[in-house]
Amino acid sequence: MPDFGRPLPEIPPSPLIAVEQLLHSFGHESPVPLHQGRTVFEPAAHPRAWRREEFGIAAHEHAPPAGVPALRRAIAEQVGARRGTPVTPEQVIVTNGATHGVATVLNAVLRPGDEVLVLSPQWLFATGLIRAAGGVPREVPVFLELCQDEEFDFIAAIERAVGPRSRAVYFNNPNNPTGFRLAEPAVAALVELAERHDLWLIADNAYENYDFSPDGFLDTATVGRAAERTFSVHSCSKTYAMPGARVGYLVAPPGCTQVLTKWALHSVYSVATATQFAAFEALAGSADELAERRELAADAWQLVDDALEIPHTAVTGGLYTFLDLRALADPGDFVRRCAEAGVALAPGRAFGEHCAGWARICFTAAGPELVLDAVRRINKTYWEGIREH
Amino acid sequence: MPDFGRPLPEIPPSPLIAVEQLLHSFGHESPVPLHQGRTVFEPAAHPRAWRREEFGIAAHEHAPPAGVPALRRAIAEQVGARRGTPVTPEQVIVTNGATHGVATVLNAVLRPGDEVLVLSPQWLFATGLIRAAGGVPREVPVFLELCQDEEFDFIAAIERAVGPRSRAVYFNNPNNPTGFRLAEPAVAALVELAERHDLWLIADNAYENYDFSPDGFLDTATVGRAAERTFSVHSCSKTYAMPGARVGYLVAPPGCTQVLTKWALHSVYSVATATQFAAFEALAGSADELAERRELAADAWQLVDDALEIPHTAVTGGLYTFLDLRALADPGDFVRRCAEAGVALAPGRAFGEHCAGWARICFTAAGPELVLDAVRRINKTYWEGIREH
Repeated sequence: MPDFGRPLPEIPPSPLIAVEQLLHSFGHESPVPLHQGRTVFEPAAHPRAWRREEFGIAAHEHAPPAGVPALRRAIAEQVGARRGTPVTPEQVIVTNGATHGVATVLNAVLRPGDEVLVLSPQWLFATGLIRAAGGVPREVPVFLELCQDEEFDFIAAIERAVGPRSRAVYFNNPNNPTGFRLAEPAVAALVELAERHDLWLIADNAYENYDFSPDGFLDTATVGRAAERTFSVHSCSKTYAMPGARVGYLVAPPGCTQVLTKWALHSVYSVATATQFAAFEALAGSADELAERRELAADAWQLVDDALEIPHTAVTGGLYTFLDLRALADPGDFVRRCAEAGVALAPGRAFGEHCAGWARICFTAAGPELVLDAVRRINKTYWEGIREH
Repeated sequence: MPDFGRPLPEIPPSPLIAVEQLLHSFGHESPVPLHQGRTVFEPAAHPRAWRREEFGIAAHEHAPPAGVPALRRAIAEQVGARRGTPVTPEQVIVTNGATHGVATVLNAVLRPGDEVLVLSPQWLFATGLIRAAGGVPREVPVFLELCQDEEFDFIAAIERAVGPRSRAVYFNNPNNPTGFRLAEPAVAALVELAERHDLWLIADNAYENYDFSPDGFLDTATVGRAAERTFSVHSCSKTYAMPGARVGYLVAPPGCTQVLTKWALHSVYSVATATQFAAFEALAGSADELAERRELAADAWQLVDDALEIPHTAVTGGLYTFLDLRALADPGDFVRRCAEAGVALAPGRAFGEHCAGWARICFTAAGPELVLDAVRRINKTYWEGIREH
C-alpha cells in the first residue's frame, strides 16, 4: 500500500468520540449526553416528497452547485430584511452544513501556509478545517479574558498575533464554548482591525437564534464596512434543530460567487436536493416558534447557572457554558470522572490549546430534569476532586 | 476586499453551463438535454420520514462522519458478496456523492504538487478535483486509441507519463465519455503498473450498473493484488437514478478508515442522514430492476448507434458515446450549432485536452423517440458542416 500524502497528523482524533467511548466503557444504560451541541427541540422540517412546482426541482435531480435557486432567493430575502440592505441570491451559497461553508471559504482564501487568526476558545473543528485547507491556525485567547473583564483589550491581543501570512479572522458570536457575546462596539473594532491589515472576516453564526441579549443576534456584516470583507456562515443545525440535514449557507460579499461556487462544486458538487427543500420549509417557518425556543434555551441556561457549584462563564448566548476546573489537582481527569458518573462533557482542550483546565457543558441537550440531575452529579464529582486536592 | 488565495483560475467554468446558456439564448421551448449524464429511470427511493428503528438514527440527527453504521454494513455486505471476499464496514466511507468521494481520496493521498495520471478522456470534473486538492493532473490519452485498436499498448503510454511526483492513477470503467471498457487482462496490467511504481488506484465505478459486456461490471479491487491499493468510488446517482441524493461511497483498503474519516469530517462533517436512508432503501431494492435498466440502456445505445451518421465510439458500457467531429472545418462550433437546432451536447474539450474534435452525447437522458429525433437533428447539422468544408 502506498502512503498517504496528507494524513493530517496535526489534527487529533475527535475528543467527543473519546468521550463516547468512555461512557460506553462505564456501561451506563442512559448517560446524559451534554458533550455535544444539541437541543431537545423538534426539527423544523422533516424529509418528505414534494411536487416539483413547490421547489422548482425534483428530489432525484441534482441541484446546481451554489444551491437551489428558490432556496437561495428565500435566504437572500430573509438576510436582506434582517440586515436592512439588499442581499442578492448570487451572494448566497448553500453548503453541506456550516462545516462545509467554513471549509469552502478557507479553501478559497488560503494559500498553503497562510494563517487564520482564531478568536479562542473556538468551535471544535475550526483549527482542523484550517489545517485541512493547507493553512495554519493561530489561536488568540480572548473570550475567557473578556468573560472575566469586559474591558480586556482583545483588539491589542489580536493585533499582536497578526503577521505577514495572516489572511483572515475566524470567530463565532455568540461564542461556543463560553457563551460570551461580542457587542457592536467590539465587533466594530474588530472590523477596523481587519481593514487595517486587509483581512477577511469569517463570522460563524451557528448560534444566531440563541442570542439572549436585548439587542438579539448581531450580524457582523451590518457593522461598519464589514460587508465587503465578511463571509457570514449560517447553519440550519442549531437554528432549526436539524443537524442531520447538513444544510448551511454562506452570505458573501458581492463578486465572490464564481470562486466560492468552484470550491463548492469541486468538493461535493452540490448539497442534497431533499435536504435543501427541508431547509426551504424550515426557513418559511414561524419566527414566534424560534423566539420561543430562544426563551427556552435561556431558561435552560438560568437553571444550570443557578445549580452549578463550579465556577463557569456567564452566558449571553449559545447553548454552552465553560466550566473552570483549574482548582482541581487534575482537571483533565474531570471529564473521565463525569463519564463514570454517567454525564458526558466535552474536554476543554478541544476548544483551544490554553483550555486544558476547562470543560464544556451543553445545557439544551436534554430536558430540564435530566440536566439538573446531571449538574448535581458533576457538582458532586467536582467536590470530590476538590477534597482530594 | 482582500483577494482570494486560491481562486482556481486553472479550472475553467463548467462547459455544461455554457451549453445551457446557449440553449437559452436560442429560445428553444423544450430542447433535448443530451449534454448531462442522466437517465429517464425513476429514482430507486424517495425522501420520506421513517421510524428510528428502521435505520438506527433519526433524520434530524447528524450521522457519524464516515456514514450511518446500518448503511456502511449494508454496503460492505453487498460489495463483499460481489467481490467474493469479505469487506468490513470500516472499509466503507459514505460520501456526498462520488465527487466528494474522489475529493476525499485526493486530499488524503496528494502532497501539494503531486501528480495524478488520468486515463483520458475522463470524467468532466476529475482534473478540477485534482487541482483543488493541490495536485497536478496528467492526462494520458488511452481510450480513443483503445477504441480504434484494442491492441494499443496503453500501459506503455501510462508508463511514459509516470514521473517522480506520480502518486495515483484515476480512471473510470466503463469509461465516460467513450463507452470503452477495460477488460480484466487490461486492468491486471494496470494493477501491475501501479505496483511497479507504488501508485494508488482510484477506480471510479459511477457506471457500474451500465456495463453491457457478458461478464458485467468489473470491480478493479478483485483483480490481482489491486485491493491493497485501490480506492473504489461508487455513486447512487447513476445506479439508482438519484443524483439529487448526493450519496456515494468509497471502499478502501483496510487501514485507511481513520485518515479518510478525518478528511470527510473536515470537509462536510457528514452526509445528510435522510439521503443516507434513501440510499439504504435503494440498496435493498431489486437486482432484477437494475438488470432491466441495464438492458434498457443497452437498447438506447443500439438505437443511437444505428441512427448516428457521424463517426462515434463503440460502447460496451456507460451512458455515452463520443462523436468524432474531426472531419468538420470547425468541430468546436458543432455544439453551438446543435444547440441552435435544439439539442444539447457536451463539448469534447471538457473531457480531455486532446478532445477538442469530439462531442459527447448521452443516450439515456430522454425517451427513445426524443433521442431519435435529436440524433436526426445532429446528423443534419453534421452533414451541413461537411458540405461547408
